[in-house]
Amino acid sequence: MTRGRTREGTASVRDVGLLFPGASGDDPVDDVAVLRALLRTEVAWVRAQATAGLVPGPVADEVAAAADGLGTDAGPLTERVAAEAAAGGNPVIPLLAALRAAAPEHAAVVHAGLTSQDVLDTALVLVLRDAAASATADLGRACAAAARLARAHRDVPALGRTLAQAAVPTTLGARCAGWLSGLHAARTFLADVGAVLPLAYGGAAGELSGAARLTGDPFALVDAWGAELGLAVPPGPWHTVRTPVTRASATFAEACAALGHVAADVLQGTRPGVGELREPAAPGRGASSAMPHKRNPVLSVLLRRTAIAAPHLAATVGSAAGHAVDERPDGAWHAEWSALRELARHAVVAARLGAELLEGLEVDTDAVAANLHTALPDADGVGAAPAVVDRVLRATGLDGADTGAPSGTRAQDGDA
Amino acid sequence: MTRGRTREGTASVRDVGLLFPGASGDDPVDDVAVLRALLRTEVAWVRAQATAGLVPGPVADEVAAAADGLGTDAGPLTERVAAEAAAGGNPVIPLLAALRAAAPEHAAVVHAGLTSQDVLDTALVLVLRDAAASATADLGRACAAAARLARAHRDVPALGRTLAQAAVPTTLGARCAGWLSGLHAARTFLADVGAVLPLAYGGAAGELSGAARLTGDPFALVDAWGAELGLAVPPGPWHTVRTPVTRASATFAEACAALGHVAADVLQGTRPGVGELREPAAPGRGASSAMPHKRNPVLSVLLRRTAIAAPHLAATVGSAAGHAVDERPDGAWHAEWSALRELARHAVVAARLGAELLEGLEVDTDAVAANLHTALPDADGVGAAPAVVDRVLRATGLDGADTGAPSGTRAQDGDA
Amino acid sequence: MTRGRTREGTASVRDVGLLFPGASGDDPVDDVAVLRALLRTEVAWVRAQATAGLVPGPVADEVAAAADGLGTDAGPLTERVAAEAAAGGNPVIPLLAALRAAAPEHAAVVHAGLTSQDVLDTALVLVLRDAAASATADLGRACAAAARLARAHRDVPALGRTLAQAAVPTTLGARCAGWLSGLHAARTFLADVGAVLPLAYGGAAGELSGAARLTGDPFALVDAWGAELGLAVPPGPWHTVRTPVTRASATFAEACAALGHVAADVLQGTRPGVGELREPAAPGRGASSAMPHKRNPVLSVLLRRTAIAAPHLAATVGSAAGHAVDERPDGAWHAEWSALRELARHAVVAARLGAELLEGLEVDTDAVAANLHTALPDADGVGAAPAVVDRVLRATGLDGADTGAPSGTRAQDGDA
Amino acid sequence: MTRGRTREGTASVRDVGLLFPGASGDDPVDDVAVLRALLRTEVAWVRAQATAGLVPGPVADEVAAAADGLGTDAGPLTERVAAEAAAGGNPVIPLLAALRAAAPEHAAVVHAGLTSQDVLDTALVLVLRDAAASATADLGRACAAAARLARAHRDVPALGRTLAQAAVPTTLGARCAGWLSGLHAARTFLADVGAVLPLAYGGAAGELSGAARLTGDPFALVDAWGAELGLAVPPGPWHTVRTPVTRASATFAEACAALGHVAADVLQGTRPGVGELREPAAPGRGASSAMPHKRNPVLSVLLRRTAIAAPHLAATVGSAAGHAVDERPDGAWHAEWSALRELARHAVVAARLGAELLEGLEVDTDAVAANLHTALPDADGVGAAPAVVDRVLRATGLDGADTGAPSGTRAQDGDA
Repeated sequence: MTRGRTREGTASVRDVGLLFPGASGDDPVDDVAVLRALLRTEVAWVRAQATAGLVPGPVADEVAAAADGLGTDAGPLTERVAAEAAAGGNPVIPLLAALRAAAPEHAAVVHAGLTSQDVLDTALVLVLRDAAASATADLGRACAAAARLARAHRDVPALGRTLAQAAVPTTLGARCAGWLSGLHAARTFLADVGAVLPLAYGGAAGELSGAARLTGDPFALVDAWGAELGLAVPPGPWHTVRTPVTRASATFAEACAALGHVAADVLQGTRPGVGELREPAAPGRGASSAMPHKRNPVLSVLLRRTAIAAPHLAATVGSAAGHAVDERPDGAWHAEWSALRELARHAVVAARLGAELLEGLEVDTDAVAANLHTALPDADGVGAAPAVVDRVLRATGLDGADTGAPSGTRAQDGDA
Repeated sequence: MTRGRTREGTASVRDVGLLFPGASGDDPVDDVAVLRALLRTEVAWVRAQATAGLVPGPVADEVAAAADGLGTDAGPLTERVAAEAAAGGNPVIPLLAALRAAAPEHAAVVHAGLTSQDVLDTALVLVLRDAAASATADLGRACAAAARLARAHRDVPALGRTLAQAAVPTTLGARCAGWLSGLHAARTFLADVGAVLPLAYGGAAGELSGAARLTGDPFALVDAWGAELGLAVPPGPWHTVRTPVTRASATFAEACAALGHVAADVLQGTRPGVGELREPAAPGRGASSAMPHKRNPVLSVLLRRTAIAAPHLAATVGSAAGHAVDERPDGAWHAEWSALRELARHAVVAARLGAELLEGLEVDTDAVAANLHTALPDADGVGAAPAVVDRVLRATGLDGADTGAPSGTRAQDGDA
Repeated sequence: MTRGRTREGTASVRDVGLLFPGASGDDPVDDVAVLRALLRTEVAWVRAQATAGLVPGPVADEVAAAADGLGTDAGPLTERVAAEAAAGGNPVIPLLAALRAAAPEHAAVVHAGLTSQDVLDTALVLVLRDAAASATADLGRACAAAARLARAHRDVPALGRTLAQAAVPTTLGARCAGWLSGLHAARTFLADVGAVLPLAYGGAAGELSGAARLTGDPFALVDAWGAELGLAVPPGPWHTVRTPVTRASATFAEACAALGHVAADVLQGTRPGVGELREPAAPGRGASSAMPHKRNPVLSVLLRRTAIAAPHLAATVGSAAGHAVDERPDGAWHAEWSALRELARHAVVAARLGAELLEGLEVDTDAVAANLHTALPDADGVGAAPAVVDRVLRATGLDGADTGAPSGTRAQDGDA
Repeated sequence: MTRGRTREGTASVRDVGLLFPGASGDDPVDDVAVLRALLRTEVAWVRAQATAGLVPGPVADEVAAAADGLGTDAGPLTERVAAEAAAGGNPVIPLLAALRAAAPEHAAVVHAGLTSQDVLDTALVLVLRDAAASATADLGRACAAAARLARAHRDVPALGRTLAQAAVPTTLGARCAGWLSGLHAARTFLADVGAVLPLAYGGAAGELSGAARLTGDPFALVDAWGAELGLAVPPGPWHTVRTPVTRASATFAEACAALGHVAADVLQGTRPGVGELREPAAPGRGASSAMPHKRNPVLSVLLRRTAIAAPHLAATVGSAAGHAVDERPDGAWHAEWSALRELARHAVVAARLGAELLEGLEVDTDAVAANLHTALPDADGVGAAPAVVDRVLRATGLDGADTGAPSGTRAQDGDA
């Protein structure tokens, strides 16, 4: 077979999520999204120059219009930029050529005073922010659902299992409260870090000479840029100070771990011989190619996938951070990009799947009771498990009846 | 901006290598390649049934023709399969539906007796084999080039540096022989493992009941499948015995490390104040968005990127392997796919870039001499460095004049 | 040779830092420290029972005295407990036996209502807190030293290097300000997280039944325990909600990365052909076994070691977190312990070495000037580098003259 | 409490396995073992000089006697060397001082022509070889036990589970054959790599000038050294070509993954609601601090611990390898040591625990039958599962009755 890619005149990579089920849909971090963020970043810089009085406003509008044109059906441009990125080692150079070609009369103001790392770091921050917002909202849904489960099953005696063995009775609600604890902590961390993600600046070597040449106060330009993009402006360049991305990685990884914990419990709960839990049904979901009548707990399976992969992705970002050197790094920076994006994607997808899982989780309370009785026939009492549930619910602010609203108001729960 | 993806009626992920410069070109492991390998795997299974006399030969031809049709312009199908993969958690189920729809009269024989893991594992092995072949060939080129450099500079005194400081004299050839040692070991390992990559079989739960229903000796079918695909047939199923993929990961990772070592030396050699080495020039290569006259050592930068990322990808595969459970795993398997593919991609791209780097590496022998003299003005002799070079060349079989052939015979060098 | 370990009648592991140079000294996280923290945790629980009126005060004093006796020359006990830990899979069980044997009349109140995970998690939190305090203080010293360097060299033109090549001029102070940015962020994160490290509770299965049996309000006991230990009391158990340890890991890893960045720059600065920086001299430091006159940048070498290892250790903790299951995990918990401790140790040692490095870093401003002139003979100006320095100093609160105090007041700087 | 370490006059780290249950016993890779290997390495080098006629035989004997004296009660010396290792960044320098002080008249021949990396790399190879031998033998025991289980339960129908759900019937023996497949592959890989672990040489900068000064053919000395140590002599130095250690890491990691797979199945098999398997009983094993009557599957728990940690340790070695630079690396080498040792320790302990687990694994065939019947009441037949068992047994050479020998001959099984 031929590759059949002659349409765009290029033979670039084409990954569409085939090996990452669950990512399809409106992916906020894919290459097309990154390309658009790159364009947005460059446009905002021209607008910042306009704000600073360096460039007439209409010039910025024309650059924005050119960028909009490039971004409208961005697939082919993304492929071309990707193919041409090898020469310089990053995608900003060919993108810039395309943008200048689309607004040739304003070529000089586009990217004036910036370096490619300013633009790519800032664009990645924009997509990370989108990813964080998406994951935060879905973690909010997951929290609300876990809280509803914890309240509903606050007093339902259940077999407590430790080190894979029957231990003592607890309540099903206490297990759900554990899920809530982790999800809530992750959501808060993600929201906090997401809210202060900074833009990147510094110019050729963090010395801001390009911006300084344009204006007496280069920070004025940087501040205007931040205002355009709605991003925090950090005290100094972070070309070699990778805290913003390691911090973001830590938040995404924490979310993935919290969801992995839920999945581990659900997988155990759905096993033959247990049967306490069932994943929400949906047409076609959980189908098997070999056993048509089987229903696989596919949401949990995909969450476990993420729990396995995410720590390694976060560690990649950490490895890169520790090798930052000079004024801009010679490879460590380049190692960050795809790991960071993949990690964000894992978190976004996992949060959505996790919300769906918890919102529709089915509990077989008969099986819960039977399993407890079989394992601990003389069990009596559940200790302080209900009080633990109450404390966790109060601490997360999800103890009220209103947070148990029907599914139609889920988005608000998520924002609560 | 809208996403502009209405053409295919789906809104899937679109990654084209924007964040992985160097991967553009004919990527042997991208989603389209995987989809084609999936089709090839299913077709080969029908052909194996024909070989075993279970199915008339023309049926296999018709299924093959249907698969060929699907694979010809495979982009849209890959996107659709990716989008639909979420429901069952893997892409085989929707692909199978597409293949059966394309050959409806033979729906029953397609995939008969297989499970999705048989097909996806085998398809991934096929693309890994292609990746290994590509990387092996390019590592062969890199070895030949390193050997030429080692021979050419066998006796050229150079400053030996240890723990980042001036140490004692060695020869430039000895450093190149070090590169050769690592590249040759990696190439051999990769070739050895690549040659025995096995297909995967087992059916629903590794018990081969589907194949057993079809024929008295289910292994006959499996052996015929192996012959069709040119893949080794392992003694038993490896649904939960992930040695084939952890072993492959180890080889790819070793290649990436060997190339990272070369890059680290080249980056040091090109630094201001050193200037002993220069990367090969090419139009547009090493350009900077902020400093037009700068020439960045972009090949080495991209190799260092890979040296940072690859160990984490290999570790992801290892983490997944250690969590294999039951007859087929509940998430650990799913975590392998994209890590394994990314790792193979890293190795393929790095081997190609590394070959290009070493084939065109420019040495400034004046700078080499000056640096030695400046650091160690009283240096006298180079120890046994030339003898070390000879020993390494002999051990790798690259000591002959013929291996120093001009670039026109590089491919043969690579195969030597 | 025989192992020569007959003294204690056991043949346990004996690691003393041979393969981790720099860790010697008063290690806050070694096994003896952990054993003492375990004792302290158990004693505090008895004191909490006394506070709650369940146990007479003198009983707690007697248990404390027994624990003090065990902890005084704790080496042999630690070895014995380690050897016996295999049977139950954790060290709490044999330690408890030892403590109960040392205070047999109070055996019933020791550990009453706790599970081993409560104790080990809490003890590890205690040593993590000590480690965080040590690293925070040393990062404070490092910040102060980096700030002094940034101020001292605020306007010294220096060669800016990007992607390993000469780029444009910056100032040496701007590079130091970059170090400061990373160190300060890491120090703040570490201090913030260290301040809220929580104790762990929950009893057999997170249901607090043991504590509930002792008192009507089990949280009263837990709160008293927190007051004894000076640790935060979390809303619920975190047996399977590993946020506290993943969060702590993220902070330690961030510190290691920030120090790795400094080391990478210092290593480049000390290289032959550069010679801009020299590590502080000390008797015997940087010696070589083969080249007596050589002085290796051993502090930076050890920091780079840590930058390489730390992300993997943090990822191990992350992997464990994502596999938490049931009421207490079946192996994921056990995988945390040594990774977490090693990571904390890396951070503690690196912070101390980093402080020493920066406090004594020698700058050769002639070499700085010469390198700039050689690489960029026509260089003119340093852009806004000095203004960048000022901004970073202000943002970190280290812009005042008092923070440039002589070394005698370093500790206070660190605490500022 | 005071640290109570005044006995040796130093306050070094003291780790004795408290956080790594199972490692107690005769640990082949702890610091004392490494110190002894360092001594052995230095002695062998003097013997090699004697073989080459450079030094009288009795001199070598006297150095050996001095080393033996140092190694006899090596604990205090190990602590002192560890404490002094910080100054030079590695333990060889202070060890060398101790050895020369113990044989002052032969100080000149000790270490003559070596560099510290030659000695430390070679010493680590010696302990890795011991570790590999230990793990290989125990994996042999584990293979034999898995084979016995596979044969014994070849035809026992059992519930096949996939994606955590009931799938189709297989046999219990087929599951055990899967364990055998992974264990056998790992054992073979480990044995193969262990057999060719090479010594390290090169001198100050891989140029062998020290050895060349001693003799006309420096390789004669190196070859004699290899003969003394029973280690392979590689073609060239591997100071910066880390294939030997990355390869060894891959083998240890593969062993840990294979054992993790077994543990995952055993943990599922012992769960409440399943009850098909029980770990071997031993006095005190599986005890709980909170629930006296509970029996935890502690062997499997510790194996799962290792399956989680090992990939990260192997990746650390891989990260270090890819950053090798110059003639000897500036931190990447140092990052290897403890990761490599920990990984080897994980493999050694896991292999021993795994052998014990499989040799004593108890199967409840009634529960196996009941679980199958409950989940798949209409199940009929087990496909070709018995034939799969036979194939795996034949491929591993463990199909004969003699491999099912009683436990008294286990060691021979392991060596088979």
